[in-house]
Amino acid sequence: MDFRSDNHAGAAPEILAALAAANEGPAAAYGNDDWTAKVQERFAELFETEVQVFPVATGSAANALALSAMSPPWGVIYCHRDAHVQVDECGGPEFFTGGAKLLALEGDDGKIDAAALEGAIFGSGVVHHAQPAGVTITQASECGTLYRAEEILEIASVCRRHELGLHMDGARFANALAGLNCTPAEVTWKAGVDLLTFGATKNGCFAAEALAVFRPDLAETLAFRRKRAGHLFSKMRFLSAQLLAYLDDDLWLENARHANAMAGQLAKSLQKAGGRLAYPVEANEIFIHLPDDLAESLRKKGAQFYPWPASGSDAYRFVTAFNTREEAIQALS
Amino acid sequence: MDFRSDNHAGAAPEILAALAAANEGPAAAYGNDDWTAKVQERFAELFETEVQVFPVATGSAANALALSAMSPPWGVIYCHRDAHVQVDECGGPEFFTGGAKLLALEGDDGKIDAAALEGAIFGSGVVHHAQPAGVTITQASECGTLYRAEEILEIASVCRRHELGLHMDGARFANALAGLNCTPAEVTWKAGVDLLTFGATKNGCFAAEALAVFRPDLAETLAFRRKRAGHLFSKMRFLSAQLLAYLDDDLWLENARHANAMAGQLAKSLQKAGGRLAYPVEANEIFIHLPDDLAESLRKKGAQFYPWPASGSDAYRFVTAFNTREEAIQALS
Amino acid sequence: MDFRSDNHAGAAPEILAALAAANEGPAAAYGNDDWTAKVQERFAELFETEVQVFPVATGSAANALALSAMSPPWGVIYCHRDAHVQVDECGGPEFFTGGAKLLALEGDDGKIDAAALEGAIFGSGVVHHAQPAGVTITQASECGTLYRAEEILEIASVCRRHELGLHMDGARFANALAGLNCTPAEVTWKAGVDLLTFGATKNGCFAAEALAVFRPDLAETLAFRRKRAGHLFSKMRFLSAQLLAYLDDDLWLENARHANAMAGQLAKSLQKAGGRLAYPVEANEIFIHLPDDLAESLRKKGAQFYPWPASGSDAYRFVTAFNTREEAIQALS
Amino acid sequence: MDFRSDNHAGAAPEILAALAAANEGPAAAYGNDDWTAKVQERFAELFETEVQVFPVATGSAANALALSAMSPPWGVIYCHRDAHVQVDECGGPEFFTGGAKLLALEGDDGKIDAAALEGAIFGSGVVHHAQPAGVTITQASECGTLYRAEEILEIASVCRRHELGLHMDGARFANALAGLNCTPAEVTWKAGVDLLTFGATKNGCFAAEALAVFRPDLAETLAFRRKRAGHLFSKMRFLSAQLLAYLDDDLWLENARHANAMAGQLAKSLQKAGGRLAYPVEANEIFIHLPDDLAESLRKKGAQFYPWPASGSDAYRFVTAFNTREEAIQALS
Repeated sequence: MDFRSDNHAGAAPEILAALAAANEGPAAAYGNDDWTAKVQERFAELFETEVQVFPVATGSAANALALSAMSPPWGVIYCHRDAHVQVDECGGPEFFTGGAKLLALEGDDGKIDAAALEGAIFGSGVVHHAQPAGVTITQASECGTLYRAEEILEIASVCRRHELGLHMDGARFANALAGLNCTPAEVTWKAGVDLLTFGATKNGCFAAEALAVFRPDLAETLAFRRKRAGHLFSKMRFLSAQLLAYLDDDLWLENARHANAMAGQLAKSLQKAGGRLAYPVEANEIFIHLPDDLAESLRKKGAQFYPWPASGSDAYRFVTAFNTREEAIQALS
Repeated sequence: MDFRSDNHAGAAPEILAALAAANEGPAAAYGNDDWTAKVQERFAELFETEVQVFPVATGSAANALALSAMSPPWGVIYCHRDAHVQVDECGGPEFFTGGAKLLALEGDDGKIDAAALEGAIFGSGVVHHAQPAGVTITQASECGTLYRAEEILEIASVCRRHELGLHMDGARFANALAGLNCTPAEVTWKAGVDLLTFGATKNGCFAAEALAVFRPDLAETLAFRRKRAGHLFSKMRFLSAQLLAYLDDDLWLENARHANAMAGQLAKSLQKAGGRLAYPVEANEIFIHLPDDLAESLRKKGAQFYPWPASGSDAYRFVTAFNTREEAIQALS
Repeated sequence: MDFRSDNHAGAAPEILAALAAANEGPAAAYGNDDWTAKVQERFAELFETEVQVFPVATGSAANALALSAMSPPWGVIYCHRDAHVQVDECGGPEFFTGGAKLLALEGDDGKIDAAALEGAIFGSGVVHHAQPAGVTITQASECGTLYRAEEILEIASVCRRHELGLHMDGARFANALAGLNCTPAEVTWKAGVDLLTFGATKNGCFAAEALAVFRPDLAETLAFRRKRAGHLFSKMRFLSAQLLAYLDDDLWLENARHANAMAGQLAKSLQKAGGRLAYPVEANEIFIHLPDDLAESLRKKGAQFYPWPASGSDAYRFVTAFNTREEAIQALS
Repeated sequence: MDFRSDNHAGAAPEILAALAAANEGPAAAYGNDDWTAKVQERFAELFETEVQVFPVATGSAANALALSAMSPPWGVIYCHRDAHVQVDECGGPEFFTGGAKLLALEGDDGKIDAAALEGAIFGSGVVHHAQPAGVTITQASECGTLYRAEEILEIASVCRRHELGLHMDGARFANALAGLNCTPAEVTWKAGVDLLTFGATKNGCFAAEALAVFRPDLAETLAFRRKRAGHLFSKMRFLSAQLLAYLDDDLWLENARHANAMAGQLAKSLQKAGGRLAYPVEANEIFIHLPDDLAESLRKKGAQFYPWPASGSDAYRFVTAFNTREEAIQALS
């Protein structure tokens, strides 16, 4: 009954099996192996377009690399004020970009909106000001909400007008897709996304993420950037094998659907018991106001979850995972 | 018969088993788990002293973090001209240190010597010059040779005189220890080493290294540095579990002894067949001049190995691993 | 009648004369000259305390050096949302700090307040978050307003509680002092300021600023930082000679008093003619809403001034300087 | 009789006069003034080609900006082992480039040669290695010697073959031109130089250098780089006025010719008295071995000069300047 984070879950059995299978025999190092080649192909199929994929082991690495590819050291990257890149990566984006400025925007439900973005952009071409360079959005957002394709298109339209790159932090991309009725392509490059952090760790891998780049010009420096950041794995096949197994037979979507369904059930049950949602539950995270006695009774039943002071002194976060058991949810209702 | 790199080998079965075992149940993220706590204890036992351990997944990350802990952005770090940090990490140390200068020293058999180091140091306290900050040595060296404890002590004595930190890149630390008759402590902190990149990937892990820091003042910033470099794993237990299994029952030393023994046998057989060693074989790497027909005949027998032009047009490198089969060696003799 | 910026004014005749005088005979380079030694003494007298002074030629350099001295690359520096360091230095602070994050605070009249600052600080010691490191305030502020000693003391008190450094960007420090009834010490170190950008260029020098450091521990790295940023002048005497002449016979305060008086007269006259102040006029800058016909009539009389859209479509900025002629002000009334 | 450095000399009277003249009336800030516009024109005439000029106040700034324009953070810049950028700028190039690696080459008389350069370049396109990006040479060299146009052409030919930029550190460019029988164009862009640090400070300015860029693609980012490094002067006219006066009526060449002639006379006199040149005297610097008694007798006569231990325990450096008096030289003979 650990609802503190989907990072607390282990790996799916299919991922472990894939690791064991990939461990047969020698393989060329640093990505010159068959698994990594196949990852490129699988992503191209999945996204129905050419895409360059850079497997790494953490989402922070994928995010920081992505931002560094779209911004010069004197660039400005616009993000939501609660964005993981702004709040939870200890300045990683600033490190990888060589000093770009993250400019935090307000926005309801953890999402930035196109008009606020448009209003914040200024100074392009003027030497005194850090230069508008890119935008990053999180899917699912830090509030567990989702950007619809049309919302992304509007943001992308501002980006195009100002020649900004658009990055999506998809740490919970599978949960987002499972919550939206659309294809991977529809909420990424077709909606104007240039770079995607494709998260897999939270949803059943040991440690595997992929930076997927849809604009070839933005990919040119990434191999060097990844290497000098210490993120090029010698035994790369073990990253790639996780990603392949993650995509095989729609494991990723199955896992995400399950986590989302569990979140939905838990949210209903908590609301029924007196809780009040802080944000709509659209993926696998619940932000909810709970009466003190309800919170206490849940704890007594063995549930672990974090208080969420940013949403109020009576607010809490619950996160479900690919392996959350339905009985656990029922035991709490 | 892949002798191209120990990075081409997969993981040892014990490591895979440990990963599977660690996959039971939830665990706190970002290193707040039992495995990671145990890693700290195990390293303290192993090195017979207090030591702070930072698990990461690549040697380049451990190296760059270590150098950044001992040098300001305007520092000088002295290394051998062939050092991995100087030649093979795409400027990672410069990135992590914020611009420190690696100053390359000549030195026989891939090792720097204390007198050459002493002669190269200058400018301390003078604002015009980048400031002497640290020294890094590789154990086993890039030529497959080993630093004896007394050689390290001499280098450390220069470091102390000039207040420089001393880092050891132990990507093949197990192979080095297996080749020397000494304890881990004797060739590290007892010999004056302040920070150690403790390599495990090449010797049987999937992806696991540890930065071990013997001087507490040098460890103070490392947790932040690791995080912002994207090297703090959410599911850290899977790094730590690899390290624990690696140390259990001396697996690491068993693996290394085997690899070294295979290298010794192969070297003898190659010499007997007409090869001439470029460097003494002291760990699991062989650098050797081969007549053309010998090289060709080895290839025909299925052996894979790299030419090594840095040592001459007739030079080649062979690397053995923890799982090199004795029959493969015999088949080549 | 150029009211666009005090940067449009030339240098005071006393400064030119000092430069000519300093040009007699040879002098040791890089600050090992008598003028530079004297600058240290003069600042100690002026501020009634020990202070380390680093002359540089631009305020951006002094600011960025100051911020880099008080923040690690993973630090957070709190500033007003309109601060010059945040808006007008093209990411200089991020460059010099190696990637610190400037966190912009709202605040009336261009000033941050202690309570808002207190509310924004979080995450200290937690590895996921960039670390609170420092605060920077601008005196006179970007709105031409002044921090009273007691306001600074309150901010400093928050800084002490959270172990943050406190920097003052005194690009218009002379104008601020001339507008406040206090000594240099009272609004700097006595009020808790650790580092001061002491501006001189805008108020009558060719190009001369001084970074004054009141906390010795924050000064330790600055000589190296200044050098590697290309801001250590070989013929340093010519920077120092400007600073000495600037302080001699209270030239700096005389110049500032004149500029402030001119701003006061002009503000009155503009208000009388129908203008409405956007901010109180406390130094040498006026931010004012003007009816269209008034703005046009001023332009016809030869006045040059910038529109200030940040304060509204009918807002304008007027800046007076040490050499603004009273007749020019009268001609506009 | 100060022969310690040409940085010890003050400014030429023509430069002071120009500063005074430029001080009449207001002028737009940050380079939007007439003087700065004229500097662009004058350089285009001087170099007989389109050129973009960025005035700055120090040679270290011009050098570091130049190198940052031609190298990515993971680049390698080849230079002579004694180069000012490598030895005397406290890591400035590493700072401005974001971590590029300076690779030091041996070379007689302070000059690198094309063959040694060719031999040092490797790893292009291979992700493990820092990437060959540029070459920097010093004219006059750190040994007071000069590169002939044909030597530069050979180096440039290597650069073109490997797609490397070529920078010339012309801290003593005037002295070099005065020593060679050629035009500014012939030893710069016509010989393959892409960026030139055009030094003026040592040869009679207060503080004025210009980064001249002959390849438009390399100039694109420089305005932003200069600004965020704090090197964009608000009262830029005073930098530009120095440069204009420096070029007017060939003042720069007159000054340099005089300094070179003085060096020639002094070298002859020192040789006659028993000195032995360490390097040929081709500009305004003398590196010479002196018998102890000769050195002592020179000191007694009032001459000031530095020992030069890099060339031996009996070696010394003498530098003449634009205002070295012939009588001083004669007094020493």
